[in-house]
Amino acid sequence: MRPIALLTDFGLSDPYVGQMKGVLTIKAPGAPLIDLTHEVEPFQVGQASFFLAASVAHFPADTIFVAVVDPGVGTQRRIVLVQCNDNYFLAPDNGLLGFVMHGTTAFAWDVSTHARGASSTFHGRDVFAPLAAKLATGESPSTLGEPINPTDLLHVEASTPTELSEDQAGCMVQAHVLHIDRFGNVVLSLLPGELFERIAPAEAAFQGAPRMVRAYGDLEHGELGLLSGSQGFMELAVNQGSAAEMLELSLGDIFALGMPD
Amino acid sequence: MRPIALLTDFGLSDPYVGQMKGVLTIKAPGAPLIDLTHEVEPFQVGQASFFLAASVAHFPADTIFVAVVDPGVGTQRRIVLVQCNDNYFLAPDNGLLGFVMHGTTAFAWDVSTHARGASSTFHGRDVFAPLAAKLATGESPSTLGEPINPTDLLHVEASTPTELSEDQAGCMVQAHVLHIDRFGNVVLSLLPGELFERIAPAEAAFQGAPRMVRAYGDLEHGELGLLSGSQGFMELAVNQGSAAEMLELSLGDIFALGMPD
Amino acid sequence: MRPIALLTDFGLSDPYVGQMKGVLTIKAPGAPLIDLTHEVEPFQVGQASFFLAASVAHFPADTIFVAVVDPGVGTQRRIVLVQCNDNYFLAPDNGLLGFVMHGTTAFAWDVSTHARGASSTFHGRDVFAPLAAKLATGESPSTLGEPINPTDLLHVEASTPTELSEDQAGCMVQAHVLHIDRFGNVVLSLLPGELFERIAPAEAAFQGAPRMVRAYGDLEHGELGLLSGSQGFMELAVNQGSAAEMLELSLGDIFALGMPD
Repeated sequence: MRPIALLTDFGLSDPYVGQMKGVLTIKAPGAPLIDLTHEVEPFQVGQASFFLAASVAHFPADTIFVAVVDPGVGTQRRIVLVQCNDNYFLAPDNGLLGFVMHGTTAFAWDVSTHARGASSTFHGRDVFAPLAAKLATGESPSTLGEPINPTDLLHVEASTPTELSEDQAGCMVQAHVLHIDRFGNVVLSLLPGELFERIAPAEAAFQGAPRMVRAYGDLEHGELGLLSGSQGFMELAVNQGSAAEMLELSLGDIFALGMPD
Repeated sequence: MRPIALLTDFGLSDPYVGQMKGVLTIKAPGAPLIDLTHEVEPFQVGQASFFLAASVAHFPADTIFVAVVDPGVGTQRRIVLVQCNDNYFLAPDNGLLGFVMHGTTAFAWDVSTHARGASSTFHGRDVFAPLAAKLATGESPSTLGEPINPTDLLHVEASTPTELSEDQAGCMVQAHVLHIDRFGNVVLSLLPGELFERIAPAEAAFQGAPRMVRAYGDLEHGELGLLSGSQGFMELAVNQGSAAEMLELSLGDIFALGMPD
Repeated sequence: MRPIALLTDFGLSDPYVGQMKGVLTIKAPGAPLIDLTHEVEPFQVGQASFFLAASVAHFPADTIFVAVVDPGVGTQRRIVLVQCNDNYFLAPDNGLLGFVMHGTTAFAWDVSTHARGASSTFHGRDVFAPLAAKLATGESPSTLGEPINPTDLLHVEASTPTELSEDQAGCMVQAHVLHIDRFGNVVLSLLPGELFERIAPAEAAFQGAPRMVRAYGDLEHGELGLLSGSQGFMELAVNQGSAAEMLELSLGDIFALGMPD
């Protein structure tokens, strides 16, 4: 039985996630259920998109990801099923899968018909969970919906990594704040690879930028630093403090970083 | 092995829920453990009662529900086991099972003797979990306690749906706030069926009442509406906003709704 | 397959715990995963140490505990594996295992070499989870690292119970606040056994101390009391109120308690 990973903005204070798991236990008994997180900020599709992309590599190759951050629930927005490698993704077509599909070969199906006759306020339980159970118990995607062009799926602005471009005079890069974690670490939409490549030969310090370090503990207490974070992106961090508070950054903000000449 | 669903006001910041699961893993290894939620407001029996009633239909038919919101732990309050259909419910006798038993045929047992010699502060771990494990591993309710009359169980005021009565001149109904969810949606103790029946022929707008819609997304941004919610009751909602904040409603409040003449 | 219990300060709002479970599902499929809690206050090693010690007895005897509260992640601090009875414990060597090893016969291994080549910011996912999976699937501790003297492990001040000493004129004992739970109950570093032994013959009231009771419900509404708590230590409690607020106590504070002459 394939594992099912759950990602929502439902929180854990309501019985919503429990009810989804109840339905999954009815329809796919024995399938391992793994909570990715249910604390996506309400309606923050971009944040969920990042969580998903950052997590896929750490799950079994045949995992079914159910991602429900869905301000449009009950309206005409599509429900889509995407296959990348051997992973499946179920989500509303609102950009949530943008990050995870970035640069991959994907297949997609419109499975919206499964919402017919369902509740109009809780598709996580009444549409997504039953669909996930069908996949977990071996049904083929092609029996569940109509194939669609994966490039037709909606994208949100912050759902792709910032690209370093030359037309910024090589001195500045602007990145989105993808996420602020519990510790106040700020995840930027910057891929370490690109960044390190650019600054590699000189290993010069960024101009006016935080010190680049390898680990949180390499910083002095209260010092701001920049490091290649565990979620695949560059992170601003303060050792045992909050970089978000120090820099007054919020989800979705733009952070400008000086680059070496 | 029967699934065990857990509902408490223990929160997740203490090791309490983890210890309950440890005991269940010792005594009923392999039984699926499903968290309904552990974020019931401390001591809010009525809220827990609603969560349980709203969730039962979405769980396997043979689930054992362990519901521990228990301000009287360690005192003389009874511990009861209730069977409705093929579901079992373990709870303190404080009204928690009122909603879920409403209108059903139930059987009940007093299982308080299992608290003898147990800790006086954590029956969730030391009494309820071992009892649930006994049921999960196949013990019969009748071996666990003395049969009692299910109608003798305690009830709390808010533990049954509001009934629409004619003596209010047909123009007003007062409902309890059963729950305010993470999104600020306000669940009222009103069954959609009754309400829709009353207003069906004309489908007239309520006088001075929020607009009735089918889905959150059918509302304008920031508009207040009334809809048939996923938890089986009428809900006040604001599209991507908080109805509870807009109306300044709290758990247990009374909300008066104008009805068509 | 041995159960794996997880204790961290990662919270549940980030995808960190989900990613740890993803890795465990890849490397030890089928091993029961139990969350002890992930809401240890960030970097509060002493609190985590208490949670672990208070919980071990309620888990299966062969459980693997993965405890990651790790301000030094990515620095030179050691990663250790400890065996007490048939339980295994994986943790950074920062005092986290002090409480649970107190008074036991333990064996210990330095398993730090497994961090070579791993990320420098998320050892929970990249080092601890793979190590736990190895143990869960039957690898022997001695193949995972070098034996070390368990008494060489670091200890933190609050990681052992307060001992009652005579040189305090028999009239006062000072205890640490080990934990404040969701309900405002204050767990003190005082073992009930010692305390009860001291005051046993007379069962006299403490001088100027809160009333000693058996259960929360034995207190009047709003009354402060002292009881033998479910976590193995003495607790200050207010019936349906917060003892921490009433006494203005925080984690790590010292609370002085009058003792009978």
